[in-house]
Amino acid sequence: MHSLRSPAMCPLSISPNAFFAASSRSLFFFTRSLPIFHDQKFCSRSPLRPLISIKNCSSITAKPSSEFRRRDSGGSETDEKLRSLRELFSKPNVGIDVYIVPSQDAHQSEFIAECYMRRAYISGFTGSAGTAVITKDKAALWTDGRYFLQAEKQLSSSWTLMRAGNVGVPTTSEWLNDVLAPGCRVGIDPFLFSFDVAEELKEAIAKKNHELVFLYNLNLVDEVWKGTRPKPPNKPIRIHDLKYAGLDAASKLSFLRAEIVEAGASAIIISMLDEVAWLLNLRGSDIPHSPVMYAYLLVRTDSAILFIDNSKVSPEVMAHLKNAGVELRPYDNVLSEIEGLAKEGAKLWMDTSSLNAAIVQTYNSACDRYFGGNGNKKSKLRRNDSLKGQSKAPTGVYRVSPISLAKAVKNDAELEGMRNSHLRDAAALAHFWVWLEGEMARGAKLTEVEVADRLLEFRSGQAGFIDTSFDTISGSGANGAIIHYKPEPGSCSVVDPEKLFLLDSGAQYIDGTTDITRTVHFGEPTSRQKECFTRVLQGHIALDQAVFPENTPGFVLDAFARSSLWKIGLDYRHGTGHGVGAALNVHEGPQSISYRYGNFTSLRQGMIVSNEPGYYEDHAFGIRIEV
Amino acid sequence: MHSLRSPAMCPLSISPNAFFAASSRSLFFFTRSLPIFHDQKFCSRSPLRPLISIKNCSSITAKPSSEFRRRDSGGSETDEKLRSLRELFSKPNVGIDVYIVPSQDAHQSEFIAECYMRRAYISGFTGSAGTAVITKDKAALWTDGRYFLQAEKQLSSSWTLMRAGNVGVPTTSEWLNDVLAPGCRVGIDPFLFSFDVAEELKEAIAKKNHELVFLYNLNLVDEVWKGTRPKPPNKPIRIHDLKYAGLDAASKLSFLRAEIVEAGASAIIISMLDEVAWLLNLRGSDIPHSPVMYAYLLVRTDSAILFIDNSKVSPEVMAHLKNAGVELRPYDNVLSEIEGLAKEGAKLWMDTSSLNAAIVQTYNSACDRYFGGNGNKKSKLRRNDSLKGQSKAPTGVYRVSPISLAKAVKNDAELEGMRNSHLRDAAALAHFWVWLEGEMARGAKLTEVEVADRLLEFRSGQAGFIDTSFDTISGSGANGAIIHYKPEPGSCSVVDPEKLFLLDSGAQYIDGTTDITRTVHFGEPTSRQKECFTRVLQGHIALDQAVFPENTPGFVLDAFARSSLWKIGLDYRHGTGHGVGAALNVHEGPQSISYRYGNFTSLRQGMIVSNEPGYYEDHAFGIRIEV
Repeated sequence: MHSLRSPAMCPLSISPNAFFAASSRSLFFFTRSLPIFHDQKFCSRSPLRPLISIKNCSSITAKPSSEFRRRDSGGSETDEKLRSLRELFSKPNVGIDVYIVPSQDAHQSEFIAECYMRRAYISGFTGSAGTAVITKDKAALWTDGRYFLQAEKQLSSSWTLMRAGNVGVPTTSEWLNDVLAPGCRVGIDPFLFSFDVAEELKEAIAKKNHELVFLYNLNLVDEVWKGTRPKPPNKPIRIHDLKYAGLDAASKLSFLRAEIVEAGASAIIISMLDEVAWLLNLRGSDIPHSPVMYAYLLVRTDSAILFIDNSKVSPEVMAHLKNAGVELRPYDNVLSEIEGLAKEGAKLWMDTSSLNAAIVQTYNSACDRYFGGNGNKKSKLRRNDSLKGQSKAPTGVYRVSPISLAKAVKNDAELEGMRNSHLRDAAALAHFWVWLEGEMARGAKLTEVEVADRLLEFRSGQAGFIDTSFDTISGSGANGAIIHYKPEPGSCSVVDPEKLFLLDSGAQYIDGTTDITRTVHFGEPTSRQKECFTRVLQGHIALDQAVFPENTPGFVLDAFARSSLWKIGLDYRHGTGHGVGAALNVHEGPQSISYRYGNFTSLRQGMIVSNEPGYYEDHAFGIRIEV
Repeated sequence: MHSLRSPAMCPLSISPNAFFAASSRSLFFFTRSLPIFHDQKFCSRSPLRPLISIKNCSSITAKPSSEFRRRDSGGSETDEKLRSLRELFSKPNVGIDVYIVPSQDAHQSEFIAECYMRRAYISGFTGSAGTAVITKDKAALWTDGRYFLQAEKQLSSSWTLMRAGNVGVPTTSEWLNDVLAPGCRVGIDPFLFSFDVAEELKEAIAKKNHELVFLYNLNLVDEVWKGTRPKPPNKPIRIHDLKYAGLDAASKLSFLRAEIVEAGASAIIISMLDEVAWLLNLRGSDIPHSPVMYAYLLVRTDSAILFIDNSKVSPEVMAHLKNAGVELRPYDNVLSEIEGLAKEGAKLWMDTSSLNAAIVQTYNSACDRYFGGNGNKKSKLRRNDSLKGQSKAPTGVYRVSPISLAKAVKNDAELEGMRNSHLRDAAALAHFWVWLEGEMARGAKLTEVEVADRLLEFRSGQAGFIDTSFDTISGSGANGAIIHYKPEPGSCSVVDPEKLFLLDSGAQYIDGTTDITRTVHFGEPTSRQKECFTRVLQGHIALDQAVFPENTPGFVLDAFARSSLWKIGLDYRHGTGHGVGAALNVHEGPQSISYRYGNFTSLRQGMIVSNEPGYYEDHAFGIRIEV
């Protein structure tokens, strides 16, 4: 029961500038639990070459869009890869009939390092979302409406394109149940599936008596990729200064340990990379756009272990970690440590919506092996209570990670860093717009990519600039109506001064993360465009000005942003706001402001949420306003 | 996935007058599924004497509040009743250790007839919500915060008052599990519990090995009540004219039969009284405020049976029913007919959230008896599919009644009747307010009840007036802050011209149902009162003016009504809108506009929803505006 008797009120903005701290390419929150069609609307993967710096600044990892290399995937090359992959099916300790290659890395990251782009490598399809399924005689790739055209171009004739969401197109498991003889072995790399999703898949294919086979020690695509596969990223990690973090790692670990005790667990394993980075006040450069490093963190009530490639850890970082009581182990040791933990009888807290199946299964199997019984199976209903006292085996504690919410509620130092970085970001944008207006006035022919590159130059001149926070959406005219538009050097449009121009971009700075959209016209917009723009702006202002009780879920405010558009029968097909990390991921949970009413996370003082209503007229123009 | 690509827009109002058609004492929707603490916030039961007419008009059933007789329940009388009741526990075919007496009738009605006020009779407590539980040596009564004071006064020392919602107060089943030795028999009248609630209760008390015993043939309270128990109501029923109904009963039955076939059932049993009345275009006078009659309706694909007391059915109504292909059977024959249905192998559609446990259990048991097997048990998950083909026994179809939504979307005739009745209702109110203003100006001392009675006089002068649609809330000053305030003749306040006066009332007319609230001041309100009133009015207007996509659930609009209050840290502790019946119940589902976000029913063109934001300052004043 809501009790609103004495509602504590909080403004949505943490300060007059708070909304400034927010924004983004909008859209619904990426859902961690759907690797098959992970809703990575924001995700655009980097191309298949190492990132290069554009400035002599060791921490800058951004590169101009014009340096993107387009992939050229010949059909024969793809066929050769498939042949090699299938040969591995019958190897000892493999013995499978099908192999599924998802888009994910082992941490359910929104953006991933090149060496983990296995689905792109094996299929030739480089879009951000997709799942490849290879049987002994078939190869199929599922992707969604954003990528149908691109996939048609990139897939060879050996592949069948499955247009997910179209009528009559089966899901991956439906297709497997259809094309395979009953009783097949379906292989996956259990690191690349969250436990929850692997369980769903297992259940779905069990209908036709297929078995889901976890191949722990061998990723078959890596085996084919071999020599040409990029090395795992090993950029040095850096300490996120206390003046930006506001709270030292030891204090954050204390908070986490209190949560562990409260939950009745004795340890927790963290796999979300931004959670690890936030908790330890560390930042990395392993992934484009996200200042994180590949690592797992195991925290017990009296110790903590960071699983990470040692070469990334400088003596300074080592001292920082030691100071917080954190030991180091090689990244690949995580499973053996989990196994040892189970053997000791530790009760491990696991967020199975994000934690990969390899870790959860290793813990559960080890508990069974060392303690026997079946007291350790995760109940579908996540009711630990019902299992109490049935077995001496330690029981996993299946709960949402406590770090997600703690990270979302920013402290004063984080808020100040966000404000400061936004001020510098705004200065770069002001320079940029002055420049662009001049160019347009003098009739310059600039492509969408060239404009985005110039913006990057302005931003990289700002103090503390590190990277873009996502691939810039630079869309002239009809391209502005493509919500996930990514201009490519060879094919993008010239920015037309007679059309609306939508620019959604953001940056990573040493002290904060930005995400901002402006829609402009360099000539005279039509009255229709003016009306739509005004109504989007009215929605933006209505949300900006909203005051509401502290326990209000974000979706309650969503209608404020749409109301003006609704009045003339218009709407937009994406959410209105997402969380933004503080010098971390540009999209983070758990809060959101969306017309999907499932996210009941309350908005709290200190949270940063984007405010980005829009309006899109297909094949004509797009409008989005985000500050 | 919501697809808002081309959102069809509809104004909330069906016309400029549509909101006029709505309103009510606000508050959340009454939930059918909780008889123990049925959220009957709107329900006020009539006192223990027959209703009397105030005008020589056969269909008028309303009576002035001043004629309410206060109950005087002596302790010794109550003790005598308890003693008689407990003596029945050991009778043959009873054999129970506890008896539970809820507030409900057999149809989960919001208002009920006097003869069904068993909980009030046995306990002496006359509030609208409460559950009495009598063991061999204890008697306890649960009620909620609205009624603590009243229950303290009315209960004798034999009773323990359980202040539901207070910290440490157990639920009924928790208390039973605590005070009874394991393995007791807990008796209920299965007609007075919905199947879903009975199942919950059964499961809860099974923890202590108690058995829930259905006493089909004997209500123990009625047995004690005997000679003094009012007769079941038998007022004649009338035909609801086609010009008001818009669709004849035969057409409605055709619609229902199509739904039955679509659901894979062969029959449906309807127990909600307003559903029966709507479907057959009949109206009754069995219950105060609701123009319905006690009846069950069984509809098969080729026949229909109305279970009703024959004495209520005039030859004209008989002809009307015959014309629609509806046969009559005595009210009490419903179980034997259900039994016969099961024997024939009919698949019965049952909405177990409203249908009483007696009917559902009779059907299920009969299926088992005649066809054997256990194929007929209602799965907790309501998955009929999983049971297919396991048994030849007919399977119940467990779904929400299709009539609820059909009834909520008004046709043109119903909308016109609602508009017309609102115009006449508004005329009565205009007369009333002019009169009251004059009385206040000349310094008259009028009590809240006297004012409510005068309003009833004005209303009863309007054509087609039948009854009030709920007990008038007439609250001066601090009484206006009591959301469910019901003035009583002996104890109510004089209307103070120096205080805010809140009047929430409504009426049943031949062609429509009204529910309207005004808050006025006869002197000079304080600036605080002015500010609060203005903000409530702003919220009312914001909701009134809302335009939104057709698939929008009501809760999305709730924040529009609160936003102005939120801006200065205020709010109100009730929902904003409920459905209103067309010459039917003043509160109906399935739609609502509430800050409880669980009701996903879309608002549709033709629905009528109240719009009643408010603001309440405890012990000071209340404001609610409803048109």
